[in-house]
Amino acid sequence: PPLGRVLVSGGTHGNELGGVCVVKHKSSECLQRPSFTTQTVISNPRATERGVRQIDTDLNRCFSAEILGQCESVDSPYEVQRALELNRTFGPRGSEHAVDFICDLHNTSANTQSCLIAGLPTDFLSLQAARYLQSVSKQPCHILVMKRNAPAFTLMTIGKHFLTIEMGPQSPGVIRADIYNKTLTHLQNLLDWIELFNTGTEFQAAEVECFEVHEKIDYPRDSEGHITACIHSELQDRDFEPLNPGDPIFQPFDGGDPIIFQGQQTLYPVFVNESAYYSKGIAFWTTRKITLALPAISVKG
Amino acid sequence: PPLGRVLVSGGTHGNELGGVCVVKHKSSECLQRPSFTTQTVISNPRATERGVRQIDTDLNRCFSAEILGQCESVDSPYEVQRALELNRTFGPRGSEHAVDFICDLHNTSANTQSCLIAGLPTDFLSLQAARYLQSVSKQPCHILVMKRNAPAFTLMTIGKHFLTIEMGPQSPGVIRADIYNKTLTHLQNLLDWIELFNTGTEFQAAEVECFEVHEKIDYPRDSEGHITACIHSELQDRDFEPLNPGDPIFQPFDGGDPIIFQGQQTLYPVFVNESAYYSKGIAFWTTRKITLALPAISVKG
Repeated sequence: PPLGRVLVSGGTHGNELGGVCVVKHKSSECLQRPSFTTQTVISNPRATERGVRQIDTDLNRCFSAEILGQCESVDSPYEVQRALELNRTFGPRGSEHAVDFICDLHNTSANTQSCLIAGLPTDFLSLQAARYLQSVSKQPCHILVMKRNAPAFTLMTIGKHFLTIEMGPQSPGVIRADIYNKTLTHLQNLLDWIELFNTGTEFQAAEVECFEVHEKIDYPRDSEGHITACIHSELQDRDFEPLNPGDPIFQPFDGGDPIIFQGQQTLYPVFVNESAYYSKGIAFWTTRKITLALPAISVKG
Repeated sequence: PPLGRVLVSGGTHGNELGGVCVVKHKSSECLQRPSFTTQTVISNPRATERGVRQIDTDLNRCFSAEILGQCESVDSPYEVQRALELNRTFGPRGSEHAVDFICDLHNTSANTQSCLIAGLPTDFLSLQAARYLQSVSKQPCHILVMKRNAPAFTLMTIGKHFLTIEMGPQSPGVIRADIYNKTLTHLQNLLDWIELFNTGTEFQAAEVECFEVHEKIDYPRDSEGHITACIHSELQDRDFEPLNPGDPIFQPFDGGDPIIFQGQQTLYPVFVNESAYYSKGIAFWTTRKITLALPAISVKG
């Protein structure tokens, strides 16, 4: 069926200012198309107002089945309350009432350039949209997908289809013109694609290269949990570039030998040195490069 | 007189991890030299532990004469209490008990590269040290000085002489290997210079190019104080490069025409798009390029 309701969200993390500025400053007219309506939302308004990532907990980890099954309570962490409210307003997830497409806007301190996070590798509509954005992008643009059967926990997953536009590098608390402009371009291209889809364009079957999340790698840490090494300069800024067994990944602060990658195969790192991941035990994620076969899609109805 | 006591401080802003990592992980032996002792301190331990810039207020604005003249009180903001404690331990400022040299380690999200902040243009010893660091640096290294007669308010000013090593770009909450390594190199060069000075090396009279702080430029803002434009892409990352009258400095979010620099002369911007300055009403500082004549200096005694 055509996509009638689209949601553009920013400020899911309140200090990722690309999405915040797009949602606050683009008049809703420029986000509308004839065949559908676009709503916008600052997902975490309190964190956005304070310029911090979160108030009590990470909003973008609050959309698990377990949390969405809770009763609303003023005693819950702020982001849990907000997740239930967003799910009520723009979902509920899995229901016919859910908005048709959610585009969530994020930034990272990692050098991801344009990274389109498409969720599950089985959502062919979102992947066809991502493939289109990639094909019209003048700059590096990679598609990241979750593992098959990975449980949903992010805001975007309350929509029927969804895409996160993750732009980096940009420091938390900062808005860069280049990031702002590229985010807007991707967003306009996405809305154009939905308009093409709704108005009968058939998107051919195609193969698309994606990066599938594999596993997280943590920093070396001491007994108190403090990091004892930083990302090696040969890995820094190399998101989506091949990481081979034996490559250096960490430089110990004490001047010791580099720590090398112990993997058995070439993988592709992403979110290398993301500032918010230190406290989550993640120095970077490894991914596998895969090719997905997308069937042709076109609107019915 | 020779410099007998040197203090290296990090974590004055708890999320600027270059100094934090140097102070935490470099054994004090590698910071010692035969002619003097080096102490290290995490200036703002609570903010450092939490990975935030500050707890209650900016510690590096707490060393004004007014604050240092207060009585100690547990009701004061944490950083005010800490400033008094640091001044008691490593100062008091202006007294013979003050440490001879303070090197404070900072980071910025701005593309400053290596920036040596030497305080007042009349502290010839610190400026000779900065000139040495600049002369042995393999990468861009600029010297920033305050206006003459500017009141002191930073941590380093409780020492008899002082230098801030400000390295960028690095996101708050992140440590990059390149920044860590360059910081260590500058610090070792500074300690080597102090050793040379203490052991009788005469540093010749010389002229040195510096950037003198001129004025701060704020973002365009709406009636609620929210920014309505970001740094223009032609200014972004151009710290210490010429900014001419008529050059674009801001890009409005609403797609309007760029806002141009209204100055009467060529100036040099610094701290362009520093994340912590949004809340201080600073998009960047302008500076004037000046040449300072440094007299020869050598140890007496």
